[in-house]
Amino acid sequence: MLWRIRHRAPQSSRELRLGIGDDCALLRPAAGEELAVTTDLSIAGRHFRLGIHPPEAVGHRTLARGLSDLAAMGARPVAAFLSLGLPRELAVAKRGRTWVDRFLDGFFALADRTKTALAGGDLAESPVAMADIVLVGAVPRGRALLRSGARPGDLLYVTGALGGAAAGLRLLDQTSARKKGASFSISGRNADLLAPHLYPEPRLAQGRRLQQQALATAAIDVSDGLSTDLAHLCSESRVSAEVDSAILPSHPAATLNDALNGGEDYELLFTASPKARIPRSISGVAITRIGRMLPIRKGRPPVMLVTAKGKEPLEPRGWEHFS
Amino acid sequence: MLWRIRHRAPQSSRELRLGIGDDCALLRPAAGEELAVTTDLSIAGRHFRLGIHPPEAVGHRTLARGLSDLAAMGARPVAAFLSLGLPRELAVAKRGRTWVDRFLDGFFALADRTKTALAGGDLAESPVAMADIVLVGAVPRGRALLRSGARPGDLLYVTGALGGAAAGLRLLDQTSARKKGASFSISGRNADLLAPHLYPEPRLAQGRRLQQQALATAAIDVSDGLSTDLAHLCSESRVSAEVDSAILPSHPAATLNDALNGGEDYELLFTASPKARIPRSISGVAITRIGRMLPIRKGRPPVMLVTAKGKEPLEPRGWEHFS
Repeated sequence: MLWRIRHRAPQSSRELRLGIGDDCALLRPAAGEELAVTTDLSIAGRHFRLGIHPPEAVGHRTLARGLSDLAAMGARPVAAFLSLGLPRELAVAKRGRTWVDRFLDGFFALADRTKTALAGGDLAESPVAMADIVLVGAVPRGRALLRSGARPGDLLYVTGALGGAAAGLRLLDQTSARKKGASFSISGRNADLLAPHLYPEPRLAQGRRLQQQALATAAIDVSDGLSTDLAHLCSESRVSAEVDSAILPSHPAATLNDALNGGEDYELLFTASPKARIPRSISGVAITRIGRMLPIRKGRPPVMLVTAKGKEPLEPRGWEHFS
Repeated sequence: MLWRIRHRAPQSSRELRLGIGDDCALLRPAAGEELAVTTDLSIAGRHFRLGIHPPEAVGHRTLARGLSDLAAMGARPVAAFLSLGLPRELAVAKRGRTWVDRFLDGFFALADRTKTALAGGDLAESPVAMADIVLVGAVPRGRALLRSGARPGDLLYVTGALGGAAAGLRLLDQTSARKKGASFSISGRNADLLAPHLYPEPRLAQGRRLQQQALATAAIDVSDGLSTDLAHLCSESRVSAEVDSAILPSHPAATLNDALNGGEDYELLFTASPKARIPRSISGVAITRIGRMLPIRKGRPPVMLVTAKGKEPLEPRGWEHFS
């Protein structure tokens, strides 16, 4: 099993001196760079559902979650470590390909495309399927994009479209309910609508450009939902924010609630000085201004939503780690 | 919850530039050093049992597993990342301290003592308790202890005593069976006998000394059991080995089977040139020569056990990741 993973893993990365097979992997950042490290835990029944998510999509999403954190720091992927806990029937087959083989198909397709070497990991039998991903990235010393750099007066931007993942999950739920658990095809128009949920694209090129050209003052990825992640950014930067609902770039299938609280879009939310020249798109992904940063004022909620009817507080209603 | 962890975490480490609170932690190795990274997954019912293991011991063992991998590379701890998946009742209490509070007591007691900063992690609700630990250590470039450096003619050594963890687990099982699930006190002679299982001590000082003085040609930690880990070392070094059962440093409570196959002792198993002057102890822990390395010979098992009756194959009978 570990042998199978070892032989499928891309082993190439300049910074990876020693990969799978020893007690530890060895990583050596290039001169002038430092390493960014993040972990993300996915558990069946909570972050994915074995009954509705294709294994390839679970593998893709596991890696995408970690890569998205690197993107939000402006870091370039160097190595990944994958810990899998799996029920026996997902990992061991009498014949044919197992769930974990298909999980790894999705995982390695994205790893190859983003030049992410699998440097190690762990595998254990578990009554519940779970995957913990560690991503290590490289970024010029002292120049990573942080959550804490936003200043009052900065403008607020987001990449791509919001709410597509939540809308896709709803469609997946409806489709699988109609099929009553039978496997259903993901193709044609469905595939387009499901893609933001099943195969989100981490915004690595966009994060790197913001970092390299020092365009952003702060950044975070939208993993828990705009309302929640913007609250995190405001808290770390000690500022407040105003979001204009009329100019939010919503996915065509998304409701306003999906766009504000949906989560798992893995777009980048960032702030920039009003003097910064922010491009309209980076590597084919649109960049949209959605609001502005303000000083904290006592008695005013940290995030306000501007609508046609006026201003209202935007409470963090995205993903909670203990719901 | 994350707030509670964040405020308990030691934040100090020269290499840790940014800890909990952003999308990633930032690590900068010192000049001339590289980073060693390892992950270890523990799942309730498989690596620990909620009914018999005190939460403090589960926290200690989670960190010790990762630190032991650093010790086996001769690395010094720099930062840890902890991912916890927990059933609601272990993490949220109406009043008083929760299971996770006590888990963190054990975790941070060892983290403080070994100067390991908690740099990040993740927390999720899970039907099964699980902990995944990532350890990052620092080691001089190109000078880490590897599994692959053993040569025919090298002598084989182990730190401390073997089989104590397996003997301790047996005692714990017997004691808890007699108490029928009621909580039982761990004190006096019991505490001594249970310590190798509940509170194993990662051999960080020993690994660093072997690395700094270039005493060892190869090293691995005994996590899965001597028979299994020695087979790993032989496989990575492309050598075979002979272990002398008469000179094995067994724990007083351990059987020969415990010492050979028990696992979780977290001692260091290493090889050294016959010319190397290996001390009898390092930082108060005994070092014992237990065998020697040989060339691979076709038809001969990779590891042989020498007993009073002659030589017999020593099959890897330690921990299996899918049993």
